[in-house]
Amino acid sequence: MIETIDRLLQQLSRSRPEPPFGLKLWDGSERRYGQGKLAFVLDLCTPEAAVDVVARGSLGFGEAYMTGRLDVQGDLQQLLAFESHPAVRELHISALQKAKFMAGYLRARNSAKRSRENVRHHYDLGNDFYRLWLDESMTYSCAYWRDDCATLEEAQEAKHEHLCRKLQLEAGDRLVDIGCGWGGMLAYAARNYGVEGVGYTLSTEQCQWANERLRAEGLHPRVRVELKDYREAEGEFNKFVSIGMFEHVGKEFYSTFFEKTASLLTPEAIGVLHTIGKDVETQLDPWVTTYIFPGGYLPTVAQMAEPLGNAGLLLTDLENLRPHYGRTLDEWIARFEAHRDEVAARFGEEFVRMWRYYLNASAVGFKTGGTRLYQITFTKGINSGLPWTRECLYTG
Amino acid sequence: MIETIDRLLQQLSRSRPEPPFGLKLWDGSERRYGQGKLAFVLDLCTPEAAVDVVARGSLGFGEAYMTGRLDVQGDLQQLLAFESHPAVRELHISALQKAKFMAGYLRARNSAKRSRENVRHHYDLGNDFYRLWLDESMTYSCAYWRDDCATLEEAQEAKHEHLCRKLQLEAGDRLVDIGCGWGGMLAYAARNYGVEGVGYTLSTEQCQWANERLRAEGLHPRVRVELKDYREAEGEFNKFVSIGMFEHVGKEFYSTFFEKTASLLTPEAIGVLHTIGKDVETQLDPWVTTYIFPGGYLPTVAQMAEPLGNAGLLLTDLENLRPHYGRTLDEWIARFEAHRDEVAARFGEEFVRMWRYYLNASAVGFKTGGTRLYQITFTKGINSGLPWTRECLYTG
Repeated sequence: MIETIDRLLQQLSRSRPEPPFGLKLWDGSERRYGQGKLAFVLDLCTPEAAVDVVARGSLGFGEAYMTGRLDVQGDLQQLLAFESHPAVRELHISALQKAKFMAGYLRARNSAKRSRENVRHHYDLGNDFYRLWLDESMTYSCAYWRDDCATLEEAQEAKHEHLCRKLQLEAGDRLVDIGCGWGGMLAYAARNYGVEGVGYTLSTEQCQWANERLRAEGLHPRVRVELKDYREAEGEFNKFVSIGMFEHVGKEFYSTFFEKTASLLTPEAIGVLHTIGKDVETQLDPWVTTYIFPGGYLPTVAQMAEPLGNAGLLLTDLENLRPHYGRTLDEWIARFEAHRDEVAARFGEEFVRMWRYYLNASAVGFKTGGTRLYQITFTKGINSGLPWTRECLYTG
Repeated sequence: MIETIDRLLQQLSRSRPEPPFGLKLWDGSERRYGQGKLAFVLDLCTPEAAVDVVARGSLGFGEAYMTGRLDVQGDLQQLLAFESHPAVRELHISALQKAKFMAGYLRARNSAKRSRENVRHHYDLGNDFYRLWLDESMTYSCAYWRDDCATLEEAQEAKHEHLCRKLQLEAGDRLVDIGCGWGGMLAYAARNYGVEGVGYTLSTEQCQWANERLRAEGLHPRVRVELKDYREAEGEFNKFVSIGMFEHVGKEFYSTFFEKTASLLTPEAIGVLHTIGKDVETQLDPWVTTYIFPGGYLPTVAQMAEPLGNAGLLLTDLENLRPHYGRTLDEWIARFEAHRDEVAARFGEEFVRMWRYYLNASAVGFKTGGTRLYQITFTKGINSGLPWTRECLYTG
């Protein structure tokens, strides 16, 4: 078992000699790969960890990290960057893993009922938990560093401003926000652009918090949040936004999603879909779907563009903000680690390790792996009032 | 037959009452649809024209216009805008048309040999012909009106500048231009950014003209044009551009195209694909494939994004310049009409009518129909040196 791991690490070290790294075993023995200062040491604390790594793919690796059978001293992201190496990929696509993934996948099919459970699994961990490491506006999606020196708070605000400009928001617009989280976008748009609107979320904690915040700001009920599935959304809107929710829709429901979207919109309405995605169709990591996002699925551009067009929604612009999400995650990680004791006291040590692993693996996915952040702008039918260039996104 | 046409025109007039229009028959009788000044009169000069319109779909309509069995007094584009009306669409999707389309389609499958013939059909009409109505740089693709007051020449230059910025061009870059036309982009990039490069075209007239122009400017052989199919392109490049050529590739060859593209590029290379496209998959108009672009096919975003990703090319940006092509075509139409007598003297009256119909139908396709102009930016693998925002496209 150890020989298999050693061969794999040698292979990784040969194809990517920098940075050098080490391996430590439960018997105290150590090996090193490459010359110079080690960026990290992979610590297999028990023999079971070796089995996890070799035979149970990324699910086993993640579980071993969570439970502490496996540890990493030094830069966890440098280790996780090997995730996208073909040799590691090959190891992960084992029969065992496929079987587990398929079982999890079928379990997670996103009917309205299942969607509710999936969302609550993640978002109802408690507002207190998210408040520890999100910015003040409670924005749990990719920020936008138009200004390289911005804080996380400022970059989240810049993201909302960027979206408002893409939407050509004006006073009196009716904005629908599908998967509105804690209402940060609605609050920003109402405060700065005088829009009316409704947000939808399936998380009771988010819904309550969002409406309280909107009331406190005097924006309610001009904008308000309802506890409903997107399939139950109602009304007529001329602006549409959905930020970091499409990842939960599931590919069997993409047509449903865009048809529902079109049905909510007036002719010439403008919408922006902000979602994580991929260049090529791949299964979402089984560890992630098991522990973090049951029912999650990351779309390709092709998988979105086809049902979008079929629903009469015309793609006018697509921006890939990939590096911005890597940085956002690094900001969250720093804040999360600053509060790790509080998290551990409430949820236990395994939860801390689970989230650390999730946040770092996600950061690596954007920096060197296969995940992207797409903002797709569209109109319902032809809108000849749109600006001819995107210059207005960048002036002022 | 006339009653069918009358019913159809009544239906069109009811669903879109403005502008009012008229119908004139071969016996001199006239009918009007709507109140007020007529925007156009559809003139069926012979009984055969009525058969063309009712029974032979858009192929029949186009042929009747070309040959003059049918004429239009007034605004041709207002008439052609009815093309996208469901009632007209339905009429066009007749069994006859389908049969003709399929036959034309099979004839036109774009093998390298057939591609050469298809390209020559259109582009070897003679440089003198294109020089009559293109701008000085001989750019036969969508211009870019960043400045609303720009002339066509200026807007074509602005398009080249916009592409150079998307490509992050720098001195010493190696640029490949697939389907380089008369070499306008290569000349601009070499003159303003000091790049080296090669362009490929299948048109002998374009190839000769382009190399002469590059020599005259002292840019040859730093940039040069070769008479080759894209499948025969060779070399290593860090920048890629293809402007208005992908429309000729044919959907069976999209994977071939992107795999070939990837094979020409170094890691982190940047490319821009500039092509007409559609929101939903539809057959190209059979009149267009018969008379103007044999082998032509307009891609959807989904049809491009999938093989792009599979070839290891990562989509970083997509811009839809739809309204710019409507205006470009109007500029070409004005210049074409100013030289219509010269064109008629050389190619005959039917050719004039054929091209007038093609240019106007194309303009209407962008203004109110189903055609789009996509600029897709991509990198070969992850390029972490790209700017984090698109602001640099709009500054200076």
